[in-house]
Amino acid sequence: MNVRTRLAPGELGDTEPQGRVAVVIDVIRAATTIVAALDAGARRLVPVGSTEAAERRSASCDDVRPLLCGERDGLPIRGFDLGNSPGEFTSERVAGRELVITTTNGTLALERVRGAEAVLVACLRNLGAVADELRRCGRPVLVVCAGRGGHVGLDDVWCAGLLVDRLDGSGSVQRDDGARVAVETARGLGDPDPEALAKTEAGAALVPIGLAGDLEICASVDSSRMVPMLIGEGIVPAGVRP
Amino acid sequence: MNVRTRLAPGELGDTEPQGRVAVVIDVIRAATTIVAALDAGARRLVPVGSTEAAERRSASCDDVRPLLCGERDGLPIRGFDLGNSPGEFTSERVAGRELVITTTNGTLALERVRGAEAVLVACLRNLGAVADELRRCGRPVLVVCAGRGGHVGLDDVWCAGLLVDRLDGSGSVQRDDGARVAVETARGLGDPDPEALAKTEAGAALVPIGLAGDLEICASVDSSRMVPMLIGEGIVPAGVRP
Repeated sequence: MNVRTRLAPGELGDTEPQGRVAVVIDVIRAATTIVAALDAGARRLVPVGSTEAAERRSASCDDVRPLLCGERDGLPIRGFDLGNSPGEFTSERVAGRELVITTTNGTLALERVRGAEAVLVACLRNLGAVADELRRCGRPVLVVCAGRGGHVGLDDVWCAGLLVDRLDGSGSVQRDDGARVAVETARGLGDPDPEALAKTEAGAALVPIGLAGDLEICASVDSSRMVPMLIGEGIVPAGVRP
Repeated sequence: MNVRTRLAPGELGDTEPQGRVAVVIDVIRAATTIVAALDAGARRLVPVGSTEAAERRSASCDDVRPLLCGERDGLPIRGFDLGNSPGEFTSERVAGRELVITTTNGTLALERVRGAEAVLVACLRNLGAVADELRRCGRPVLVVCAGRGGHVGLDDVWCAGLLVDRLDGSGSVQRDDGARVAVETARGLGDPDPEALAKTEAGAALVPIGLAGDLEICASVDSSRMVPMLIGEGIVPAGVRP
């Protein structure tokens, strides 16, 4: 299996997504939140680049208004329905609804892989499910870490290393330099837990704003079988055609 | 000691070099070649972004013509005096001369850190010397890996991890996420040697073009006390004022 690995979105060449299944990793917290929202029955999530774009989309809706969610500087956005804390996304709040989501890093990474054959969203919670889906597809893979403000985020590199190790059960993955860096990082750090995530830059940023509790959910490896897939402009469970 | 670490030049924010001593790492091969050239007595090296810029600079010289060196796709450039193989840079060829050098990744990384308080050039050969110089300066550090075509190169991340570990003798380095990724990578991979470098992307690219012998020099950890420093437009031994 050919797995190309980019540790930050800026490493991606324009044509690299072509012919590959892209996996966007954003552990703290967009991918974890997307998994939570779909597990709670959200119909789909539409990622947009700005709060203004989110508001425009909401205002232009004839039908049931989509819920607005996301963060800026980690915090919920004024006037939005939900923030970016996965625990907020309960079935009571989101079941059956369309969500428009804008986050700092995850949305940007999703933009960069638009040319891919398919785009999946991964975090620690759905590692095994995403690995199974990638094996099922049998296509070349492009792992892209969302990172943090353009540079690498330890949480995402850690998750990427665990994913590559999962894919490589039979030693069949050809590892590029990015994959080798990620795998060595994951092996050195061991199993993720909330305390370890709190020592990453993205995790540490949640502590002063009172959201460190989110890391409990972010760290729960293999707690979900949900595989979010970007189809058109929205993210839905893989296998669902909108 | 505050050490910020960027694993590829594209991760660098525009203002990040300000107030820091930048260390540009390019193991295979620009930094190794620069160390070799200065050790062999080259007066200074002027990095430029293109073969055309190198030729223009050479043509406009009233004085002794600078030697042209560098590579494209790893190979020496037609009409240039030297390639990018460190072993070529003997005192017979370069002592007392100015060199204009253009390489694919190293030159770009040097451009990106222009706003730094000082810019040093590091590779495996001068790890200890660079670590000593950084401790002597006592300023915040910005480690920038040159990488490979915009993405991370394992050789450079490996070297960055070894450098951060050297600086952290007393546990006094505050490691950002990039530093932690680099350190885990370096610890997982152990001591570099030519065979291990040949398995990195940059090293593997030298094999089919017959230049794998360069890796012997690239892997020779602490074989030089040279600390190249960018001053104005040229790279000279630290401590020398041009």
